[in-house]
Amino acid sequence: MQISVGCISKTFCKPSVSQNLSQFSQKSNPLLQKLPLFSKCATPNTFCTRAGADDGQRRVTTAMPKKDSAERIKMIDTSSPRGTRDFLPPDMRLRNWLFGHFRAVSESYGFEEIDAPVLESEELFVRKAGEEITQQLYNFEDKGGRKVALRPEITPSLARLVLQSGKALPLPAKWFAIGQCWRYERMTRGRRREHYQWNMDIIGCQGITAEVELLSAITTFFTNVGITSEDVGIKVNNRKVLQAVLEKYETPPEKFAPVCVVVDKLEKLPREKIVAELSDLGLAEETVEGLLNSLTLSTLEELADIVGEDNEAYMELQQLFALAEAYGFKDWLVFDASVVRGLAYYTGTVFEGFDRAGTLRAICGGGRYDALLAAFGGESKPMVGFGFGDAVIVELLKDKGLLPSPPHSVEDVVVVLGDDQQRLNASGLVTRLRQSGRKVDFILEDKKMKWVLKHSDRVSAERLIIVGDREWQEGNVRVKMLEAREEMDVPIAEIC
Amino acid sequence: MQISVGCISKTFCKPSVSQNLSQFSQKSNPLLQKLPLFSKCATPNTFCTRAGADDGQRRVTTAMPKKDSAERIKMIDTSSPRGTRDFLPPDMRLRNWLFGHFRAVSESYGFEEIDAPVLESEELFVRKAGEEITQQLYNFEDKGGRKVALRPEITPSLARLVLQSGKALPLPAKWFAIGQCWRYERMTRGRRREHYQWNMDIIGCQGITAEVELLSAITTFFTNVGITSEDVGIKVNNRKVLQAVLEKYETPPEKFAPVCVVVDKLEKLPREKIVAELSDLGLAEETVEGLLNSLTLSTLEELADIVGEDNEAYMELQQLFALAEAYGFKDWLVFDASVVRGLAYYTGTVFEGFDRAGTLRAICGGGRYDALLAAFGGESKPMVGFGFGDAVIVELLKDKGLLPSPPHSVEDVVVVLGDDQQRLNASGLVTRLRQSGRKVDFILEDKKMKWVLKHSDRVSAERLIIVGDREWQEGNVRVKMLEAREEMDVPIAEIC
Repeated sequence: MQISVGCISKTFCKPSVSQNLSQFSQKSNPLLQKLPLFSKCATPNTFCTRAGADDGQRRVTTAMPKKDSAERIKMIDTSSPRGTRDFLPPDMRLRNWLFGHFRAVSESYGFEEIDAPVLESEELFVRKAGEEITQQLYNFEDKGGRKVALRPEITPSLARLVLQSGKALPLPAKWFAIGQCWRYERMTRGRRREHYQWNMDIIGCQGITAEVELLSAITTFFTNVGITSEDVGIKVNNRKVLQAVLEKYETPPEKFAPVCVVVDKLEKLPREKIVAELSDLGLAEETVEGLLNSLTLSTLEELADIVGEDNEAYMELQQLFALAEAYGFKDWLVFDASVVRGLAYYTGTVFEGFDRAGTLRAICGGGRYDALLAAFGGESKPMVGFGFGDAVIVELLKDKGLLPSPPHSVEDVVVVLGDDQQRLNASGLVTRLRQSGRKVDFILEDKKMKWVLKHSDRVSAERLIIVGDREWQEGNVRVKMLEAREEMDVPIAEIC
Repeated sequence: MQISVGCISKTFCKPSVSQNLSQFSQKSNPLLQKLPLFSKCATPNTFCTRAGADDGQRRVTTAMPKKDSAERIKMIDTSSPRGTRDFLPPDMRLRNWLFGHFRAVSESYGFEEIDAPVLESEELFVRKAGEEITQQLYNFEDKGGRKVALRPEITPSLARLVLQSGKALPLPAKWFAIGQCWRYERMTRGRRREHYQWNMDIIGCQGITAEVELLSAITTFFTNVGITSEDVGIKVNNRKVLQAVLEKYETPPEKFAPVCVVVDKLEKLPREKIVAELSDLGLAEETVEGLLNSLTLSTLEELADIVGEDNEAYMELQQLFALAEAYGFKDWLVFDASVVRGLAYYTGTVFEGFDRAGTLRAICGGGRYDALLAAFGGESKPMVGFGFGDAVIVELLKDKGLLPSPPHSVEDVVVVLGDDQQRLNASGLVTRLRQSGRKVDFILEDKKMKWVLKHSDRVSAERLIIVGDREWQEGNVRVKMLEAREEMDVPIAEIC
């Protein structure tokens, strides 16, 4: 591509003055240097001077709008707010890798993506069952006096969307979401205040087939990232077991959710504390004992012995395991009557992914929540779903040596060796390469070849294309194939 | 794939009771119906009954944890909080389409993605220049008394990351981000409180080449979504013009940013109001007049006549246009001395995408902000970037008939026609299809074929695979190729 420049190039040859942009007194400022051309990098060779990055020294520069250069502005706190994370490029590539797997599995199962605001009305999350999630709500009053909260979970927003859609929503709907969730603890224990959560939910399907489809998706995700059923299991239970026990002791139905919330703390608190909390809820000693005994069941046969083979919870669990076997993921599942999950709204099947080594918190969790829409005053619809955070899975992958370090990768690095005319020539070439679909990192300054080679390696480039005076005059550019360590002249018109 | 079931299937034949999950008094509840099998959909044919979706009727269902079914719970507000948006599947597909274009262009230019928390320390955004963006800050005090804000823009977070990285950051760095930004207005005029913004920034490169690279990326984005330089232009200016004028009148340097903020309102406010605001800043009448006159320049020649050909702003603009021509996008650019942008921190080149029809607000905007790190107390580094919101571009695309409606698309719909044994058979088949990379929507309930065909059309499926008793016994499944309207029996082992 030939580019006509005419008289423009002479403009480029005039020296350009440096970046003293909001500092007016350039003429009197001794720090100010005349810098040649437009293509000089202000901080050359930074790549090679990693040492001393944290020496805390700050220079007052010409760009600062102040009269006295001895006055130093106090450096802002460069950390992200307490309990939150920044995502620099390597972190972001990892996040994209993880979310890419979440998304790929969801799409492989025919699910559609949704999202809702990270800031919602507080009423969506306030429940009376004593859950940790509502106690740690990141809520505040907005300037209009409205009570709002940074969402602690996605499910209530999803339920809101279902109610909003009304009968226009074709059912069953299969939705997934990946979104940031927040919590606020007054006493922080190094715990984070935000995480990202992957959700998959099926709305309008009451059969156990929906649960199995979700469990299958979770195991597919694990398999896709290299985790096996020897590393991870999924504990499965059905809250109707607990419900049957409470019914047997004629416990009022409104105790169901708070009891589940207490039972969920079984592994975290001593037994006496659990007993005390259950008593506080008004449960008789006999009920508490019957309840705690029922949590020790570990086979479906034991369950059938107690509740009978025509018990609903037993039948659903039987069906679930039979279907899981047919899908081919039964080896991931473990029946565990002590698992009830800590969210108030689950009503049937509940499940929880765990590492078999037993060192990590739950990896994911979910269940059936057929009563949530009704609790919001809407028409009831069967719903089942799970939440899968981005924290524990990364710990697990790290432990197992399965966490990748996806590199930044461009296809071509294009560098100019020559004058401004060569930069103009190269600009047209770069445009053409990008239009043909190449990912091109165009070096925007005059850099030494040593730097360029190091940089090309850092960005995992396939080719380094050098636009130089001699080659251009011969109608060529110089191309280095970086992995093969070959280089050749290629006609400008042929490169693509 | 043959699946052994043995005695399990008899379990499936027992009727399962319905979802009365947190309602304990099932035996006495007349609404409760016995529902057969696990694969019944609770709300059949909802797809066909769109009418009456908004009739406001709410039924109290068996799933509600209350004693008296006449008690109705007031429906929650199902709208998203004021000024925010929900993303139902069609909206989300559109958002993913748009963000996909943002991401593809950024990667085509060799940029790396970053992110920072949507909630930041307020100090990051508080500036004294009178900008609208800081006046409308969505800030509040957290429970620990820290002043925080939902970010109104991404640039200050990006600057924080640069400071945090220190010398470990290879320069120049080319970063992009796509993130949600917030504002709070007391008097809302139907304006939204959140939008998503695409940012591209180059850190550590002071030459005009960086500006041109960014402008090129913007025009590539426009081109990729079908917008031409006849639809959209980019106004370009350099704040050093204004700086030179202020210097000429010996205006103190600290007035520079507030003056820019006032000048940015030129199109929104009457001239008298602008004059008054400039006077309020302490500018003499003569200065105001000289300033306002300088904003009327519309060619580089006029600019050179006034400031001279060796003026820095003039030279940079000259270089910018020459490089834009070499890249091949000069026809998108317009020199306009009245464009200064409303952010305090710009110091050199500024630019703004606009629709040539003149009906919309600015589509995107950016510029050079070499002084921002210094204002945060850090070591100065040249920086240039732009923000590109997701609102105006969608309006423009809609106006031009360029807004797509990406369909939900799965590859296979798999449906079971038969008993529970067929569902088990189908489950294994579905697993196999997904493992081979197919996107499979597995129908989880017993549905009529009419519904299934309509559904397959809605999800743009390629194939409908029917797992039925007769075909399975013959070792086949029935496959409908939906577009070609062909159907055939395919051996189970061969389908993939």
